[in-house]
Amino acid sequence: MIMVIGSLTVAPEALDTVMAASLEHVHRSRLEPGCLSHAVHLDAENPGRLVFVEEWSDMAALQAHFVVPASTGFAALMSKHATEGPELAIFDANLLRRVGGKK
Amino acid sequence: MIMVIGSLTVAPEALDTVMAASLEHVHRSRLEPGCLSHAVHLDAENPGRLVFVEEWSDMAALQAHFVVPASTGFAALMSKHATEGPELAIFDANLLRRVGGKK
Repeated sequence: MIMVIGSLTVAPEALDTVMAASLEHVHRSRLEPGCLSHAVHLDAENPGRLVFVEEWSDMAALQAHFVVPASTGFAALMSKHATEGPELAIFDANLLRRVGGKK
Repeated sequence: MIMVIGSLTVAPEALDTVMAASLEHVHRSRLEPGCLSHAVHLDAENPGRLVFVEEWSDMAALQAHFVVPASTGFAALMSKHATEGPELAIFDANLLRRVGGKK
């Protein structure tokens, strides 16, 4: 499984625009083949910092995601508004244990 | 490297208490041996849902973290207030690529 942790920081006045685009991106991404989970969060210590946590079945699914036209449009919008980032960390992740929650 | 994604949902009236305890837990955890990163976030689609993203050097460091008395106290407080969760997913994660941000 491929895990992606993405983040960027935006100025307060850009947050509504960026969050709306982020939620649209998240909802669209969840429908893409191989997307296991995709969500956007706000850093509790920096409300201008958005953090994406994504799980993909494999690298091929993630690479296909990167070239979806709407994805590249979204990435350009994020770069335009970012005061820090955007940055992505891509991991090969193997689930060792799940405690509580979904089985 | 070990990655932990933890989450729980709390009622609105408990959010301030739980967030204060979470930030204290995050700051304390960052000082522990083997803690590479530790942060708490709010789910943009569910402001009562806290999501922890943690990176640990290895499983031994994470297991030591779990038995720190303050950690077990924190976990009990989270369980008390949770309306969903808490749940943890523990991954063996290998960084494949970092795009933008810290080198």
